[in-house]
Amino acid sequence: MQCKGFKAAGIAAGIKNDGSKDLGCLFSETPATVAGMFTRNRIKAAPVVLDRERIKAGLCRAIIVNSGNANCCTGDQGMRDAVAMAGLTATALSLPEEMVLVSSTGVIGQPIPADKLASGIPEVVSRLATDGLGDFAEAIMTTDTVPKLASRTGEVGGSRFTVVGVAKGSGMIRPDMATMLSYVCTDAEVSVEILQECLKKAVDGSFNRMTIDGDTSTNDTVLLLANGLSRAKIDSADAREVFQGALDEVLLDLAKLLVRDGEGVTKLVEITVRGAETVDAARQVADTIAHSNLVKTALFGEDANWGRVLAAAGRAGVALDVEKTDLYFDNVRMVAGGEGQGQAAEVEATRILKKDAFGITLDLNRGTASASVLTCDFSVDYVKINADYRS
Amino acid sequence: MQCKGFKAAGIAAGIKNDGSKDLGCLFSETPATVAGMFTRNRIKAAPVVLDRERIKAGLCRAIIVNSGNANCCTGDQGMRDAVAMAGLTATALSLPEEMVLVSSTGVIGQPIPADKLASGIPEVVSRLATDGLGDFAEAIMTTDTVPKLASRTGEVGGSRFTVVGVAKGSGMIRPDMATMLSYVCTDAEVSVEILQECLKKAVDGSFNRMTIDGDTSTNDTVLLLANGLSRAKIDSADAREVFQGALDEVLLDLAKLLVRDGEGVTKLVEITVRGAETVDAARQVADTIAHSNLVKTALFGEDANWGRVLAAAGRAGVALDVEKTDLYFDNVRMVAGGEGQGQAAEVEATRILKKDAFGITLDLNRGTASASVLTCDFSVDYVKINADYRS
Repeated sequence: MQCKGFKAAGIAAGIKNDGSKDLGCLFSETPATVAGMFTRNRIKAAPVVLDRERIKAGLCRAIIVNSGNANCCTGDQGMRDAVAMAGLTATALSLPEEMVLVSSTGVIGQPIPADKLASGIPEVVSRLATDGLGDFAEAIMTTDTVPKLASRTGEVGGSRFTVVGVAKGSGMIRPDMATMLSYVCTDAEVSVEILQECLKKAVDGSFNRMTIDGDTSTNDTVLLLANGLSRAKIDSADAREVFQGALDEVLLDLAKLLVRDGEGVTKLVEITVRGAETVDAARQVADTIAHSNLVKTALFGEDANWGRVLAAAGRAGVALDVEKTDLYFDNVRMVAGGEGQGQAAEVEATRILKKDAFGITLDLNRGTASASVLTCDFSVDYVKINADYRS
Repeated sequence: MQCKGFKAAGIAAGIKNDGSKDLGCLFSETPATVAGMFTRNRIKAAPVVLDRERIKAGLCRAIIVNSGNANCCTGDQGMRDAVAMAGLTATALSLPEEMVLVSSTGVIGQPIPADKLASGIPEVVSRLATDGLGDFAEAIMTTDTVPKLASRTGEVGGSRFTVVGVAKGSGMIRPDMATMLSYVCTDAEVSVEILQECLKKAVDGSFNRMTIDGDTSTNDTVLLLANGLSRAKIDSADAREVFQGALDEVLLDLAKLLVRDGEGVTKLVEITVRGAETVDAARQVADTIAHSNLVKTALFGEDANWGRVLAAAGRAGVALDVEKTDLYFDNVRMVAGGEGQGQAAEVEATRILKKDAFGITLDLNRGTASASVLTCDFSVDYVKINADYRS
């Protein structure tokens, strides 16, 4: 997966104990406009604080990312370390320091190993290559089991552009700024303002529509870089629509990859709530169902326990009439007017729950608004993975 | 455990498949004043709807409770079944029907087996005995592993009174009306108004301060009956304080028993947030930590992963300054001013996490308000229990 004018690399710098890749660099041969979205957690890792400042200038040449250590709750030293990571990268690439952004992901509260970065950063820079994005995607992984990449192309005014994205993160994820880390490059030419608007829209339709376990990271970051080398200029409304479409699809692909690779996940489930009075109400009910541990463990057990779905809906803080409520697993109506539809529906539902992807739709029959959210089941392996994450 | 003028019984009526006790009756020899609190879930089981109406009269003679079936999302037939349960009990005890309250707990959405109740109710009534509360406590269990009972006595104006309570519920529990089912009897003499006020206060300090998995049941019910047979009259401020103290302790005992017996629970953890600007803020942060799956799985793994505690606090929607924040496991300070306190603290914390009960205290150092909540770890067994609950 490549995008004109971008290079990437990923290496094992010894930050992780297991010898796997843990340091990645992404580089644009020319200054790229940049847009970003960051965690809303009140506790922000040092690199997030740094990037939020630096991104205001609107231009970026390189991003340096480590996994294995979140550089969060590390005090003043943490900020000095984040600045130093950027500085080492800038030196190795002969760039102004402020053109480098930084991300970290991993364990919170331990100082980042400066010596590993001092030797690793020059090495990862020396490996930068046009086909290096796969290595980069691997280097940013923590509990992910597979690297996550997606791309689309589009055409504007006779020029073909590419959007390429990578993402990581399989725990600590919820709709309220969902991803842990994602980096998206395009060779389209996009102003900072349009880039930021397009990114927000694409994130709202993808990373903000999924949940794995309801927790939010201190390090969540999405960065979008546009270097313009394709000459596809995204200025008209038409061009913008084409670009937004490609960007939306890349982020939605990445969102699905994230949920599917959620910690211990065996099933990808789209929860849709329709017939609500407002979109907010629909979303609130969908989110409550999507986060319910009882619903998620039933999904893991392939148990069509629709009572738990209704019970979760009932505590969402949204008015509903049980006697109006219908529930579907895919197209099978399990509940009509608040009552179960008996054995035949149960048998069909059990067949659907054995699939690795399906939908649950709750119709409140009170209005015309709807919303949906991607979720997953909650397995024995989720607990095992998270019980001894630091060891 | 006994209380003057109350009888109880519990039998196996064949509602549960495994032949264990599933039908309980509690009886007061004289009319008792009654107070109640019920689920705030918008989806309410038929018996909850019935009890909320009947309790308005302020008097009760008997409560009939089944486990194994929640009689929820069962439509008009569900309400007819709940009324019939009360009717059968009233007939067997020669009581007016409206003096009987009803509860059900178990699977949602399946019709309650009327034939089992028709034979079971006369039988359970025939077994009513002054020492029957243990059998009653067993009969209301679902995934509970032990029956839960607590009692206290007090003295008012030379008369000694008793408060005896039972409870069940080890999943679908959260601070917002926490318990699934709890029944409390006293032989004190208490007006309906005072009884309701005392119950609300006691529930706020016990069942509303705990969480197991963040879900709320459709059937949550707490009922408190006072038959006055001890002649201890709870009318003066002093008498009320004595009664409230005894009631508070009974409910707090039951709350601790519930959390300790939470599905798959191995640890009981009190989360305290202090130094907050308001009690609401303290409570919101404590609740967010107490519900975090990442915190709870780390507790299960005995991993002193304090970064997850801070990350959960950071997403609680409450202003905090990480550089002011301190964190303690019991009395060991793990974090000071937002920074980890190193290896020695880690070693001490790991020792604390091996205990089966301990405290986590977060000091925001912004104000003087505090709040605490009881929580538990989140284990592999929780997932196993809930993955195949219906089978």
